Amino acid sequence: MSGVAAALAAALPGRVITDRDAMEGYRRDQGPLTSAGRPAAVVRARSADDVITTLRTANEHGTPVVTRGAGTGLAGAANAIDGCVVLSVAAMDRILALDVPGRTATVEPGVLTGDLDARAREHGLWYPPDPGSKAISTIGGNLATNAGGMCCAKYGVTADHVAALTAVLADGRVIRTGPPTRKNVAGLDLTRLLVGSEGTLAVIVEATVRLRPPPVATATMVAAFPTPQHAVDTVLEIAAVADPAAVELMDRTCVRAVNGMTRMGLDESAGALVLVQCDGPSADQEAAACAGLAEAGGATEVLRTADPAEGEMFMQARRAVYPALERLGTTLLDDVGVAVRDLPRLLAAIERSASAHGVLVGTFGHAADGNLHPTVVYDATDRAAADRARAVFDDIVAAALALGGTITGEHGVGTLKTPYLDAQLGQAERELMAGIKAVFDPKGILNPGRAY
Amino acid sequence: MSGVAAALAAALPGRVITDRDAMEGYRRDQGPLTSAGRPAAVVRARSADDVITTLRTANEHGTPVVTRGAGTGLAGAANAIDGCVVLSVAAMDRILALDVPGRTATVEPGVLTGDLDARAREHGLWYPPDPGSKAISTIGGNLATNAGGMCCAKYGVTADHVAALTAVLADGRVIRTGPPTRKNVAGLDLTRLLVGSEGTLAVIVEATVRLRPPPVATATMVAAFPTPQHAVDTVLEIAAVADPAAVELMDRTCVRAVNGMTRMGLDESAGALVLVQCDGPSADQEAAACAGLAEAGGATEVLRTADPAEGEMFMQARRAVYPALERLGTTLLDDVGVAVRDLPRLLAAIERSASAHGVLVGTFGHAADGNLHPTVVYDATDRAAADRARAVFDDIVAAALALGGTITGEHGVGTLKTPYLDAQLGQAERELMAGIKAVFDPKGILNPGRAY
Repeated sequence: MSGVAAALAAALPGRVITDRDAMEGYRRDQGPLTSAGRPAAVVRARSADDVITTLRTANEHGTPVVTRGAGTGLAGAANAIDGCVVLSVAAMDRILALDVPGRTATVEPGVLTGDLDARAREHGLWYPPDPGSKAISTIGGNLATNAGGMCCAKYGVTADHVAALTAVLADGRVIRTGPPTRKNVAGLDLTRLLVGSEGTLAVIVEATVRLRPPPVATATMVAAFPTPQHAVDTVLEIAAVADPAAVELMDRTCVRAVNGMTRMGLDESAGALVLVQCDGPSADQEAAACAGLAEAGGATEVLRTADPAEGEMFMQARRAVYPALERLGTTLLDDVGVAVRDLPRLLAAIERSASAHGVLVGTFGHAADGNLHPTVVYDATDRAAADRARAVFDDIVAAALALGGTITGEHGVGTLKTPYLDAQLGQAERELMAGIKAVFDPKGILNPGRAY
Repeated sequence: MSGVAAALAAALPGRVITDRDAMEGYRRDQGPLTSAGRPAAVVRARSADDVITTLRTANEHGTPVVTRGAGTGLAGAANAIDGCVVLSVAAMDRILALDVPGRTATVEPGVLTGDLDARAREHGLWYPPDPGSKAISTIGGNLATNAGGMCCAKYGVTADHVAALTAVLADGRVIRTGPPTRKNVAGLDLTRLLVGSEGTLAVIVEATVRLRPPPVATATMVAAFPTPQHAVDTVLEIAAVADPAAVELMDRTCVRAVNGMTRMGLDESAGALVLVQCDGPSADQEAAACAGLAEAGGATEVLRTADPAEGEMFMQARRAVYPALERLGTTLLDDVGVAVRDLPRLLAAIERSASAHGVLVGTFGHAADGNLHPTVVYDATDRAAADRARAVFDDIVAAALALGGTITGEHGVGTLKTPYLDAQLGQAERELMAGIKAVFDPKGILNPGRAY
């Protein structure tokens, strides 16, 4: 047992795993193409004090610490580093307070996002952020990556729902990033700095998030367009007549994959399918206006419903995309962002690369945010196919950058996308980020080499 | 002429003022109770290059730089420091681009916020942030303080509308805080770090902000409640039935002051007046629901209109408060925030202090954000009265802190509130902020001693 492992085992009896087989499940997240090291120890923290002890000990030993929640990340940010301490906060899963009149919840980082939302709903409230993983991912992980989801179009990303954080610094000191008031401009915004920092600055041990009443109604529209350009033109116009909670897009490959898995019978002749969900008291009216625009914009088929169950069925078509693509092979899920108006150009670039390499790519995503998830489908047992898949993945990132976009909209950089950082961030910006990192974590033990 | 003044005058011919009288108008913002030094030089920058030259020169000389826009700040953040360079970006007032389909505007920092909004409206778009000063304050100043306003209840603060910034570091290097995509999680969030940093980290030379279509309709309600508790109970309930753009509160002193200045004839028997403005397609329906809650919540009078002009008249009652209080004496405008449910306790504490010191305080503000502007009215020519005013101001800040709130919700810390920082921020948090400052500005020339 290494020095740090022995010290942790002594300091945190019953919390520390050092058995190689038992540690196996803590070595990686779900990121593809990323490598994972072998940890010296895994700590399953049950309290902020456990986190403090872990960080103090690791800091004294100069040992890297990789913090993880449920391990559902897709960029390798939670992958172990050789000889590191993996700090799991999954067991810190208590909802500490639910303030119904104040509309906030205070939670430990290991709470599943779906569980928080379910608890809020018992009290007539709602936690809006809805990453696709919400049933299985933790609030802590959502905070670490600033997770997005479908309803960002109207309600924003995870960061937009955070009131205040309590976090432990690398040396074991505890910080509180602010009072949970709606407004606060006293000092620098440490809350926003921690959100999205992928475990590199501090370990969040408590989060106060904002809740709101759920929408009183929803109305949903699905429209089939001959081309992505028709679809995106309509998406751009929609914001003038509605404020939809979700505006999702799927390409023909995704439509076919969903039809192949389900009996939905979506229109396979369409170049792109757009799903729009409006909510609130004027949901039906807004969805009708969106449908009108879709028809005027050349949609070949438009369906609309104000029935929540039927609307949910429409949205299932979108949610089915990724499982449907997974049935076709190993998937390499990308996450890039551009200005909404540049989506047709991004889609065209993806198609060009897929066709040049003879690779299947299904593209879906959050059209109103300009955030797409092109998904390369390949045979992982075929080395040449894997190389082609990687080449297309690289092309997609390069296409987003060429359009002035981002290499990651909501999944994070992790280890998967560090090679592309130089192309997005300038030298001065990277130096600032490294400098901030050194302020929080002078020995550089917190998830070193990840995120920026 | 000092060394730095001479160097600047040589490097930036026609841009530099060193005449003592001519510099007088650049010495202070509108913050009360704050002192201002005498600058060595004032630079009126016309371009990012001018800013770069100014910062490089000041950095070489180790001279403090105080950046200012229109000087409408209320916390002394733009007050000169003895021997400093005042860098005015007021003349950098070009709207560089208005991307109508992309719904963004790219502006220089000296653009007046109201002018940006007016230009957006010419194209059927809207810049939502509405600080009370929007007609006379600049986007750069709004960014520096993360300015709020009335419509934050629904639309958020200035930071929520910023897509990306270009800024100059103390040593003259230029940074760009990200692509203006709706989502971006590549690297740390430098945008949010700069917003609200009060000129201490970098000088913003270009901002890309998000626009949206203006609301299709508004509906407005005003309700008179017997006590602040009745008013706040209703404010808390409103979020369950409506998503108002503004929820404003004024106390009896404000009502009397407005009646004294105007012929509005507001109900002076009321303990608190609440104004609610709803917008969007269901504005009228939402305002009706709010009115129903106000009646059920004990309001003695409820007025409601879906007529925009009449609604604007209602809101004028709220906008008239500060000018009306100014007619009664010198005003000391505070800016504190608490949880919404704690507003009655904050209001009670303010009344206790005002009464104990025999001082008039009118309190108004943004009820849905828990952000109030208690305004001490006093006779500035009477030293004892000024001391009592300051004592009440201190009590108000202490009351907000005692309720777990913030010393400033939207005006910033500046120099006015630095004495209270220790009571709100912990030692570790302040050390982190100082460390971040040193990363951006190793010589500490940018607005030293302000903000945190």
